[in-house]
Amino acid sequence: MNKILFTCGDVNGIGPEIIIKSLNSITLNSGNKFYVVCPRETFLETSEIVKPRFNFLFSDKFNDTEKGTVSVITLKDVSRKYGYSTKASGKTAYNAIKLAVELANAKSIDSIITAPISKTAFKMAGINFPGHTEMLAEYSNTKNFVMMFLSRKMKASLVSIHEPVKNVSRHINGKKLHTTFDVVIQSLKNDFNIYKPKIAVLGLNPHAGENGAIGDEEEKTIKPAIRKYRPNEFLSGPYSPDAFFANRLYRDFDMVIGMYHDQLLIPFKLLNFGGGVNYTAGLPIVRTSPDHGVAYDIAGKNLADPSSMIQAYKYAEIIVKNRKRNA
Amino acid sequence: MNKILFTCGDVNGIGPEIIIKSLNSITLNSGNKFYVVCPRETFLETSEIVKPRFNFLFSDKFNDTEKGTVSVITLKDVSRKYGYSTKASGKTAYNAIKLAVELANAKSIDSIITAPISKTAFKMAGINFPGHTEMLAEYSNTKNFVMMFLSRKMKASLVSIHEPVKNVSRHINGKKLHTTFDVVIQSLKNDFNIYKPKIAVLGLNPHAGENGAIGDEEEKTIKPAIRKYRPNEFLSGPYSPDAFFANRLYRDFDMVIGMYHDQLLIPFKLLNFGGGVNYTAGLPIVRTSPDHGVAYDIAGKNLADPSSMIQAYKYAEIIVKNRKRNA
Repeated sequence: MNKILFTCGDVNGIGPEIIIKSLNSITLNSGNKFYVVCPRETFLETSEIVKPRFNFLFSDKFNDTEKGTVSVITLKDVSRKYGYSTKASGKTAYNAIKLAVELANAKSIDSIITAPISKTAFKMAGINFPGHTEMLAEYSNTKNFVMMFLSRKMKASLVSIHEPVKNVSRHINGKKLHTTFDVVIQSLKNDFNIYKPKIAVLGLNPHAGENGAIGDEEEKTIKPAIRKYRPNEFLSGPYSPDAFFANRLYRDFDMVIGMYHDQLLIPFKLLNFGGGVNYTAGLPIVRTSPDHGVAYDIAGKNLADPSSMIQAYKYAEIIVKNRKRNA
Repeated sequence: MNKILFTCGDVNGIGPEIIIKSLNSITLNSGNKFYVVCPRETFLETSEIVKPRFNFLFSDKFNDTEKGTVSVITLKDVSRKYGYSTKASGKTAYNAIKLAVELANAKSIDSIITAPISKTAFKMAGINFPGHTEMLAEYSNTKNFVMMFLSRKMKASLVSIHEPVKNVSRHINGKKLHTTFDVVIQSLKNDFNIYKPKIAVLGLNPHAGENGAIGDEEEKTIKPAIRKYRPNEFLSGPYSPDAFFANRLYRDFDMVIGMYHDQLLIPFKLLNFGGGVNYTAGLPIVRTSPDHGVAYDIAGKNLADPSSMIQAYKYAEIIVKNRKRNA
């Protein structure tokens, strides 16, 4: 039995809608227990748009729940403005995540599935985290974590996350690479039961630097970092990023490690038609999320597709199960 | 009638092989005239691996040729070492391109199709161009040029080309963007007969900077540059790079302009399975090439696939025709 909690995300986006849609298609009496953190009014309003096909109860704090009934842990009500980042939506999204991490730290729940947030709304509310990943890491006291993307076609991990391109190079150093490799290897073993993982590492620069002709990070930093893991671990690279995908080499590996956000997110999303899952490896808590954003343009219109969130739930369930098995 | 010339590229790679294979499948009596710049011995050796199904004549300088007969303009013979960058292979590749540009400048030929070179070999030979594009621009006295990629699914253009990632930001400035937009718009009109082009511009940073939260180039440079072209031209963006490809928005545009090499080359190659074509827009000469590299691992083994080079030939023919029409 796993306790799985959904956070509402930005209430002016599609978060609450895809949570109800997901819960509608998940088998709720599967043996797991389900929680949602969301303002009461937001949940009720969204229920007018998408009829819940499950029983739910409101509660102003975490209580154990019956199997098959969704417990909605309520936050302070908030005035919604579909399609817009507001201070209030930022604050609510933040409060939902904060409560979720507290429950996870207290081991009241096994995993968190987070609906998308707006970083602009975060900023308006004076919250300076660039994203979920960094916030979850800080509030769970985790130093070493990795943003990972999961799909059937490819698993991928980032060395740097939400960095401006001009700052990426300074995040590519031996320490950061070793931390990433360590977290990824541990996660593949503990979270995915892949005990001898095959890992590809991409270069940073065009043509992976072409032997130092286009940037020196591959020669000075990435190659030495990879060498340290051999022969104990199967790390291979640095690969020329475009050639790697041109030749579809990801099919030969359990994991592709990329140096910066769009280097991996562009091919990952292209391959998965927006159907992938975001996972934060290295946290004590299991946290997954859909890999799309708040989709303000279709918020409140019953047009949102829950499939990425349903996938996020499925991966969370698998990872919780594997972690218990490998503990 | 168009005069089309192939350069041998790096003789230790697959260049000469894919030239003969391409010429074998092109209809040589289509009305065009065909030239190859290549060392005589290299051409003959390669003929042992792939039998030419066309007539050819060697010549030590450019001469007009008969339709249906390929004229091989010979360079100094060179000792080959399949699969390796050598000083000699770099020098030969360079000499082939140099001769081709001279012939183009003299209007002896209409277009150049370049086989892949090794930048490492270039370096060994003391040649400091990072690629064909930059060399062709310099030797044809062209200041404003753009590296473009052509396929049925997407046309794409780069603002910066072979720059280390850490230097990309400093290449994203108003002048560079305007030059790129100008060259791209002119090329779409003159080279592709698209008189009202719809052009998408990608952001530089993750999530296109998210309103300045992740880098400021979008707000300070890219948005103002785009605004200057409206309402006369249809330029749209800057788009979040990963969302753009996740939602397959490239299908709505005649051209996608990206800020750096792998931002476009990864999705372009993934979409085209290595079948795209590289084109240098803005040159007085029409130059195309396959979008793959020297493929040292399969050199000399009769395993190379000429389809990207054949596509390069087809695009060159179309562009030459359109330019004559729009002149």
